Formats: sequence, structure tokens, C-alpha cells
Amino acid sequence: MDFSLRIEKTLQDAISKAGGPPCPPKLAAALRYAVFPGGARVRPRLSLAVAQACGDRFPVLADAAAASIELLHCASLVHDDLPCFDDADVRRGKPALHKEFGEPLAVLTGDALIVLAFESLARSASEAPDRLAGLLLLLGQSVGGPSGICAGQAWETEDTVPLAEYHRAKTGSLFAAATVAGALAAGAEPSQWRRLGECLGEAFQVADDICDVTADPEKSGKPASQDITHDRPNAVQQLGLEGAARSLQALLHEAMDSIPPCEGAQQLRTVIAVQSQPFMPKGFGQRAA
Amino acid sequence: MDFSLRIEKTLQDAISKAGGPPCPPKLAAALRYAVFPGGARVRPRLSLAVAQACGDRFPVLADAAAASIELLHCASLVHDDLPCFDDADVRRGKPALHKEFGEPLAVLTGDALIVLAFESLARSASEAPDRLAGLLLLLGQSVGGPSGICAGQAWETEDTVPLAEYHRAKTGSLFAAATVAGALAAGAEPSQWRRLGECLGEAFQVADDICDVTADPEKSGKPASQDITHDRPNAVQQLGLEGAARSLQALLHEAMDSIPPCEGAQQLRTVIAVQSQPFMPKGFGQRAA
Repeated sequence: MDFSLRIEKTLQDAISKAGGPPCPPKLAAALRYAVFPGGARVRPRLSLAVAQACGDRFPVLADAAAASIELLHCASLVHDDLPCFDDADVRRGKPALHKEFGEPLAVLTGDALIVLAFESLARSASEAPDRLAGLLLLLGQSVGGPSGICAGQAWETEDTVPLAEYHRAKTGSLFAAATVAGALAAGAEPSQWRRLGECLGEAFQVADDICDVTADPEKSGKPASQDITHDRPNAVQQLGLEGAARSLQALLHEAMDSIPPCEGAQQLRTVIAVQSQPFMPKGFGQRAA
Repeated sequence: MDFSLRIEKTLQDAISKAGGPPCPPKLAAALRYAVFPGGARVRPRLSLAVAQACGDRFPVLADAAAASIELLHCASLVHDDLPCFDDADVRRGKPALHKEFGEPLAVLTGDALIVLAFESLARSASEAPDRLAGLLLLLGQSVGGPSGICAGQAWETEDTVPLAEYHRAKTGSLFAAATVAGALAAGAEPSQWRRLGECLGEAFQVADDICDVTADPEKSGKPASQDITHDRPNAVQQLGLEGAARSLQALLHEAMDSIPPCEGAQQLRTVIAVQSQPFMPKGFGQRAA
């Protein structure tokens, strides 16, 4: 089955369970609103691409891990958009969740999505129960303290921000979890897949920084220049547009080079090249693979 | 080892991991602030009491499950106190977390505590890995949608609230998880322990309703009459003070009667009677066992 179909079906199943009876109707609607329609589903697609490159021995577990990563990502978006953080009006081309459902439901939706991520993984573990603890630890570390998404976001409240750690925690950690989880869920040795996720996470951050400066809000579905508005570090400010584009290309090359020898390596390189194309700045025609 | 020591040590270890380097200093401090000093630790003590009654075969797992339940409870308190919910100034006799650290860190602290609960459990699963998936599902269901704490809290945003479901989700679910998790972690058949948790959860809710109406805010560490302020159902309003006290006693009796035959049944009855004593309204001298 196509990656998109696998991801959407697993997410639909998870949201139907969490939002089914006796769930309060508004929470059920908010859970669905937070997850559908999705963005590019970059992280779960990456996770499944790695699982496939590694032989995809336990596809139900791979699907669950990929979907859990997306649920955690969606949770972080809902909470990031809250008035006390970005105070965003728009997300994925529609009103931010707290604008549509109010702040209480936005807090609860984020919470319930975090819980659902771990619960869904546990529900799908019977295929390879010995892999469950490792996957849970991996996901927990990628979103909690001391160096997951929560920690990354919390650096924004500190006076002094170590930039590399901030980016690693806020963006890199879930990308690294995506590649490592894909390998783990496929029954492969996971550690050699971490660098790929880290490089792609960093590349995605640079691409996002470029997009923040150059993109048309109508097309990107979110307001422009949010980094300047919120006084957050941005690669274009630090390196200039051309420097940021060069950095992005170097990261994608390093990502490709980091792929360990495996049956599906060439196919994975193609998937990454195709999937990273929409995130390239305009005129950045040279494909990375 | 004494229950309190076991619980505090496991919580300390968990918070030290989540708040250790490279955690941003304010998030590390906020995580500690949310969990220490604790309240009565009613839920984890109940969980360990059940584990002990069942033979406590896997004490590391029982400690982890008990601590995870407390971490989830602490997370719910931090988020409940936010301005968009109760807007509470005080919790456990000190400023509510968002008053001390600001709203962004309060949201992130709650999120990180939820993640930490699942992560800690996964970290302690090597003693009995076949019990991990069941414990995770149990905890997930007790705090997420469709009928965990998030769902319970979300009922407060609906126009029509089914009272029994509201209480079951908001308070009962984590008490039921505490007794079932204690049995599960001890290697016992868990389902026959659910009713005990449900009864104690309901009893705790009634005791809390009585406390909300009658307690001295100086001693209880939280403001009085919050239910009236926030237009929430309260057993004293529905049944009168004496009726509520009778309901509380009946629930405690049903709890005691529900304890399945096991080696430690009598000791467990004593533990429950002693631990429920501080929650009894004044003059409610007759012990339930």
C-alpha cells in the first residue's frame, strides 16, 4: 500500500478510537480538526520510507510508529499556536484550532493527542512486543524533556539560547525519531539511522526559515515573517538567502551520504529527493539526488 | 520499603532524567515545582497498596506505574489551573505553576509530564516486558479520549453534561487505573480490581465536593467554593451536606466489599481506611473499616 494511504488510514483509526463514544462531541471534532486534512506528513512518510528500506518486517508496527510521530507533531502545532506562544490565527490554511474551538479545547486536544500517540503504539505492539519499549522511549525522548520538542519550545523562554541545541530539540528530535523508529519497527539496527533524521530535520528547519522569509502566506497556509515577529533565530538572517540555500543543499547531501548500506538504499534516496523538492526555495532546481 | 519512600524516589528519578542536562533551566525548575512537594499522593499509594495485596511480584514496574499515574495527575493539575480553565492562583499551598513560571512554561510542563509518564513506564519494563503494553493502554485510556481525564475536562465545554460520565472520566478513570495498574504490575488478573478504583474515585470526588464547600482555604491549600464559581456540579448542592456524607460512606463500604479474595486483602482494607480518613468531613468519625 502507498505510504499516504497507510498513514491516513492509521491516523483515521486512531482518531476514531479517541474521538468515538463516549467522547464529548466538541473534543471529538477538535481532535479530527487537528489531524485532518494534514500537511505534507513529512515525518511519517520519512519513517515509512526507512522502514521499507530496512525490509518492513512489521508493517503494522511501522504504521503505528509513523502515525504516532504525526500525532505528536500535530499536538505540538496545536499548543504552539496558543495565544501564550505564537498566537497564530491560521494553520494549514484554516483557522488555528483555538480560534475555531477556543483555548480550553486547544489545550485538551494537544494533551489528548500526546496520550493517543503512546496509546496507539501500545495497541499495535502485538506484532513485535519486544520492540515496544524501545519505540516508546524513542518517542518520549523526542518530544519531552530534557531535549525533545517541549525542551526546544521552552528554550524560547530563556534569556540565553544555545542555538544548535534549540534547533536539535525543537525540530531535529522528531525527525531523528522518525528515521530511528522506522528502522526499529522494521526489526533493523536503529542507531545507524539517526544521522539521516538529524540532517533532514536540520534541512527542514533551514527550508522553513527560508519559507518564513520568502513564501506567499496564501500558498503556505501560515503568516509570513513569524520568526522576526517572535524574535526567533532564522537561518536567512544569519547566512543570507544564498547562504541558507547552500546550507540546505549541504545538509541534504550529508543526509544522502549517511544512509547505511541496505537493500532499499537507492529507492530511499529517490523518495527523499522527491519529498524534499516542495520545500526547496524557488529556483533551487538542482535535485539533491 | 515504605510506600511514600518508593513513590518519592521513583518520582525524583523521573524528574531528574526529564529535567537533567540539556534541559532548559526554567523548564527543569517548573517540572520539579509541579511534582514536589506533593499532595497526599492518594493514587500512587492506592496503586502500590493493591500491588502489595497481590504479592508485588514486580516492584520496579509497580513503582513505575504508580509514579506515572502521579505524573499524569500532576500534569492535569497544572493544565487545569491555567487561566483558560480554573484560572487558579494557588495550588498545594503555593502559587499555581503558571503564576510562578508563566503560561508558556505551564503548558509545556504539563505536556512534558504526560510524556514523562509514558517514558518512565517504558524505561522500567524490563522486569516484566509482557506487562508493558497493557499498562500503557490502561494509562492512556484513563487520561485521553474518549473517556479519560481530557474527556472529563472537555465535558465542561459542552452545553449538556452527562454527570456520571463526567465524574467517571474526570476523577474515576485515574483511580480505576491506579488499582488495575497495581494488579497488572504485580502479575495478577487486573479486571476484578477495577470496581475498587471506581468506588474510591467516586468517593474521592464526593469528599472533594464536601471539601470545596466546607474547607478552610488556609488548610486545604486551594481556594474555597470553586465549583460554584465555575458552575460545576457538586454533590453537596445536589444531596445536602448530610446526604453527601452518607453517599461517601456508602461508596467506601462498596469499595471495601469489592476487594477480591487475596492474601493481602485485610491489610489493604486497613490501608484504605487509614488513607481515606484525612478526606472525611469533620465529625465523620466512624471509620469505614
